[in-house]
Amino acid sequence: MNKFVARGAASLGAFGLMVMPALAQDAEAVPVSPEVAYIFNTLLFLIGGFLVMWMAAGFAMLEAGLVRSKNVSMQCLKNISLYSIAGLMYWITGYNLMYSGVDGGFIGSFGPYAFDAVGGDALDTGYSTASDWFFQMVFVATAASIVSGTVAERIKLWPFLLFVVVLTGFIYPIAGSWQWGGGWLAEMGFSDFAGSTLVHSVGGWAALTGAIILGARKGKYAADGSVHPLPGSSMPLATLGTFILWLGWFGFNGASQLAMGSIGDVTDISRIFANTNLAAASGVVAAVILTQVMYKKVDVTMALNGALAGLVAITAEPLAPSVWQTVFIGAVGGAIVVFTVPLLDKLKIDDVVGAIPVHLFAGIWGTLIVPLSNDGASWGTQITGIVAYGVFTVVASAVVWFILKAAIGIRVSDEEEALGLDKVEVGVEAYPEFGTGSQRM
Amino acid sequence: MNKFVARGAASLGAFGLMVMPALAQDAEAVPVSPEVAYIFNTLLFLIGGFLVMWMAAGFAMLEAGLVRSKNVSMQCLKNISLYSIAGLMYWITGYNLMYSGVDGGFIGSFGPYAFDAVGGDALDTGYSTASDWFFQMVFVATAASIVSGTVAERIKLWPFLLFVVVLTGFIYPIAGSWQWGGGWLAEMGFSDFAGSTLVHSVGGWAALTGAIILGARKGKYAADGSVHPLPGSSMPLATLGTFILWLGWFGFNGASQLAMGSIGDVTDISRIFANTNLAAASGVVAAVILTQVMYKKVDVTMALNGALAGLVAITAEPLAPSVWQTVFIGAVGGAIVVFTVPLLDKLKIDDVVGAIPVHLFAGIWGTLIVPLSNDGASWGTQITGIVAYGVFTVVASAVVWFILKAAIGIRVSDEEEALGLDKVEVGVEAYPEFGTGSQRM
Amino acid sequence: MNKFVARGAASLGAFGLMVMPALAQDAEAVPVSPEVAYIFNTLLFLIGGFLVMWMAAGFAMLEAGLVRSKNVSMQCLKNISLYSIAGLMYWITGYNLMYSGVDGGFIGSFGPYAFDAVGGDALDTGYSTASDWFFQMVFVATAASIVSGTVAERIKLWPFLLFVVVLTGFIYPIAGSWQWGGGWLAEMGFSDFAGSTLVHSVGGWAALTGAIILGARKGKYAADGSVHPLPGSSMPLATLGTFILWLGWFGFNGASQLAMGSIGDVTDISRIFANTNLAAASGVVAAVILTQVMYKKVDVTMALNGALAGLVAITAEPLAPSVWQTVFIGAVGGAIVVFTVPLLDKLKIDDVVGAIPVHLFAGIWGTLIVPLSNDGASWGTQITGIVAYGVFTVVASAVVWFILKAAIGIRVSDEEEALGLDKVEVGVEAYPEFGTGSQRM
Repeated sequence: MNKFVARGAASLGAFGLMVMPALAQDAEAVPVSPEVAYIFNTLLFLIGGFLVMWMAAGFAMLEAGLVRSKNVSMQCLKNISLYSIAGLMYWITGYNLMYSGVDGGFIGSFGPYAFDAVGGDALDTGYSTASDWFFQMVFVATAASIVSGTVAERIKLWPFLLFVVVLTGFIYPIAGSWQWGGGWLAEMGFSDFAGSTLVHSVGGWAALTGAIILGARKGKYAADGSVHPLPGSSMPLATLGTFILWLGWFGFNGASQLAMGSIGDVTDISRIFANTNLAAASGVVAAVILTQVMYKKVDVTMALNGALAGLVAITAEPLAPSVWQTVFIGAVGGAIVVFTVPLLDKLKIDDVVGAIPVHLFAGIWGTLIVPLSNDGASWGTQITGIVAYGVFTVVASAVVWFILKAAIGIRVSDEEEALGLDKVEVGVEAYPEFGTGSQRM
Repeated sequence: MNKFVARGAASLGAFGLMVMPALAQDAEAVPVSPEVAYIFNTLLFLIGGFLVMWMAAGFAMLEAGLVRSKNVSMQCLKNISLYSIAGLMYWITGYNLMYSGVDGGFIGSFGPYAFDAVGGDALDTGYSTASDWFFQMVFVATAASIVSGTVAERIKLWPFLLFVVVLTGFIYPIAGSWQWGGGWLAEMGFSDFAGSTLVHSVGGWAALTGAIILGARKGKYAADGSVHPLPGSSMPLATLGTFILWLGWFGFNGASQLAMGSIGDVTDISRIFANTNLAAASGVVAAVILTQVMYKKVDVTMALNGALAGLVAITAEPLAPSVWQTVFIGAVGGAIVVFTVPLLDKLKIDDVVGAIPVHLFAGIWGTLIVPLSNDGASWGTQITGIVAYGVFTVVASAVVWFILKAAIGIRVSDEEEALGLDKVEVGVEAYPEFGTGSQRM
Repeated sequence: MNKFVARGAASLGAFGLMVMPALAQDAEAVPVSPEVAYIFNTLLFLIGGFLVMWMAAGFAMLEAGLVRSKNVSMQCLKNISLYSIAGLMYWITGYNLMYSGVDGGFIGSFGPYAFDAVGGDALDTGYSTASDWFFQMVFVATAASIVSGTVAERIKLWPFLLFVVVLTGFIYPIAGSWQWGGGWLAEMGFSDFAGSTLVHSVGGWAALTGAIILGARKGKYAADGSVHPLPGSSMPLATLGTFILWLGWFGFNGASQLAMGSIGDVTDISRIFANTNLAAASGVVAAVILTQVMYKKVDVTMALNGALAGLVAITAEPLAPSVWQTVFIGAVGGAIVVFTVPLLDKLKIDDVVGAIPVHLFAGIWGTLIVPLSNDGASWGTQITGIVAYGVFTVVASAVVWFILKAAIGIRVSDEEEALGLDKVEVGVEAYPEFGTGSQRM
């Protein structure tokens, strides 16, 4: 079974639309020739790919802005390293585990991916295989970025990077094979257009598992149950990161149409762009109004995370919803953030950047609500998929986190945590001439 | 009358060029089929749209860099909120007010905009309607961003957001209908290719009106007439914002060609890219040389605003000018900034980021000079358009500002202003570990 | 001789691939019509061009992050000014010196470049000439950006800008004419796909020459031979700059295919995207592992420069290498940075941002290794080209630097250097409310 069957099947048949131009045209009427469709399809992957690649910078800035200044260099280092590791692992094992020979099953095949030959001109795929690899690769990096933010400020560098190796080379691709690789969930009719569950929830579950196993940062939760906020070092960087992610999401959702070589496809991509933007906007407005009502002030970090939650929520089905449905889906996403950030604090789960509400909770919401707009999806199958991804990712992640904890330790000492990871593990302070974090915890 | 008639008519007939591929081809010679032209046209709107969306981040960074650190979170919050509000309002009322049934008049029709159906394949428009909506939507956000910078550091959050609701849902769309919607100014032959007047001056007039009604920041103008500079908190963020805006402007001007489905159109887009870059570069060089000559030092904020002024100036006609004309138009734009920033200070109009010189004054200049390169434009009609937009926007904005002032107040108290808006209204400091603004005003 | 012959000839025949669609098609089978190919080719230049333009922001942020806070405004000013000057000079003299009438020789012709006429529709070039100009223009700005970082923190503004005038208007174009303009090196069969030598090494040689003539910053090298680190002011800005450059490099290398109007071309562009990303990722991983092994900590600046070195290294031949070869080329690039940054310090050559290891040394490496994957290249010719570019650029740059030194001086006084260039030459502090650099040198 072709890997695209699954990705498009339960939503709106991207596979069918994509290949049709190359098959359905006879010699008399060639509105879009197979060659031209091939170029458009490939160009879509390239543009979508560089936009999603740019999201790596978005996560880096968001996280750099939301950690304390003594841990900013570490967060920068972790983000550029995880993007690099993801890019290598998705070549070494990831792509084939996810897309090669899954055939209704639970896993693909092992081995590095082979690109098109230079000057290749095989029309049969309908797009360049290297462009597809590039586009899929940047998605796996996104999943890893989500983990990075949650476990910040107390995890050691190397165990984190080793976790990224396993997540991007094995956990994400195996999980992805179930649906986009044409595995068992695709056969069941699960629907997740661009990855509310496959990317965002998988990253979120791995982050949640890590946060629980790592424990909270020192000083965040007092013995009396009170929560001590540890404010991030730079709101403009966090804002910049959010805008970068918003921009990248047009590639994330738009290019997940997987084809641009027909007027039907490009029309759908346009609708996806508009819906993606409207969901994010609705998430912001919901978060701004709710924080004003609840706290009498508008927390800028909630507005930023509201945008991201709206984006995550619409990602499972960015095409089918009407505008009213889109606004509803996005606004609920924003509301989820406002209500679940304090909830995590009550549970003493320390999520430094709010990635669990944004990527996991809003991802579940977005996946659950697909049947509202997409007749091809069923509530039961959506729940099955959500649970399956949750169980697998939590178990697999926990195994890896515990092995790393036993083998090399995953957390810095209390003294090192107080000193800051930049001094301890990176050796380069983020802002050597400004505040050093000494005034605050 | 089609909405594109006006946008292209007085310049170089984008409408004609765009639709021709779909009409002029017979069965024998189909160099660009209507389907392929449709895909290219839509792709232009999508690429142009995400580039202009990115300008929202540019304004956020520019303004975050040019306000004092105690107001940076507020500026970030205002920018992500205004972009969100613009996106919703332009769906609820904006698009149809601007483009639906204007027919030589002063206003379109009320009601939310409806997107293409999923899988739509109507060729007749020549592009996807959702892509067009997306592209027009990001323009209205730009107009709102301009206001945000000018009125920074003393305006309350909610009155500002309510102003944005009216500006993006009503004032901008109604004004826009006169020209791009095919209204009375379009029938007169007014020419404004990508919005020196329709976007930048409208934003600038609204900002000017707001600045006058709000009054200056405390401490900016002493009783003896001297001006006390209140330097911005981060020059690298201001620089980043300028580069983002410059990048986004290729979408702003380039995609305003409105069609890419013929070699004539894509050739014109290329020329627009080159001219846009040359005008910005000329604005920088003019501002750098002038500040060196006048002040013996080169003010980096003048260089940044010189770039933006060059961009605004060329926006009214980025296609027709020769390179020499482009350099002249851009350089005068840069010079306008250098000379009018001190002028505003003499008038005690406190424009925090210099948006009025950049967007209003350079916008007027760019609109005025169109007939130099475009034979289809007349000096009289250009002046008529400039005056009409000025009068309408000032009156409409003033009414809204005064209603907001009377109803809920628009300005924070002196104590709150001294404390900074981040503490008072946002509750999240931008840089909690660095300077707190206590060393300076 | 057509300018594209040289650029593509020794690698994989971009010229042939590009023009073929327009020539090789007969009336019966027109999979991609010449008109459609023209639009795709032009679109490639426009997208590639705006991505490379964005690299100017990347250099600005990288350098702003790696200099001390007292020199950050200056670095911002220098970067926006150099990009502007490059854009003007490449019109006034650069393009024609590089591409017009070189014909196997050493230099093109003098005079400003003329763009396509408005509404031009000449199919013969296969792309819009203004799009080509735009794409080539952003490359010359890159070369100038490289110099800016190395000579930071002690050079005066105006001599630097005058050097940029000569570099972008004369040195780079003349050197470029030898290869991409179809000059003597192209005739010899030299191979440099996207500019490891023509852009990065030329910038690197000019930077090296400047660093030697300027001398090191005060306090960097003690009399006893010890090196005193002068840490950069903002790691997140340096990280942002690196991600921007990484993103821009997809345009830099990808659009250097120079054609997208056939499935062979777009397939090659996809492969270039994948290889470019893999080389950068390998550079990061190599630098991270090496610094951990050598210093027991991972230096984030080494990780960032490792990415850039991997990118520079693959730029000479991003298409032909297999994935294994790509990983090798990129990883060696990253290793070069780790080993040569301390080497420069031993030689007391003060390169503020590490641009010489990244752009010059990794550029030489990338150019040298082309024959590994590209049978059309020879080791001898590659070395000839490397040496020729080195000798010419060093001599030409030295002449300009010495003339500037004699005429107006190129270095600020010791007092001014201690005070910081922002106060002395710009008059605008970068972070007026934060640290002022007083705590550190």
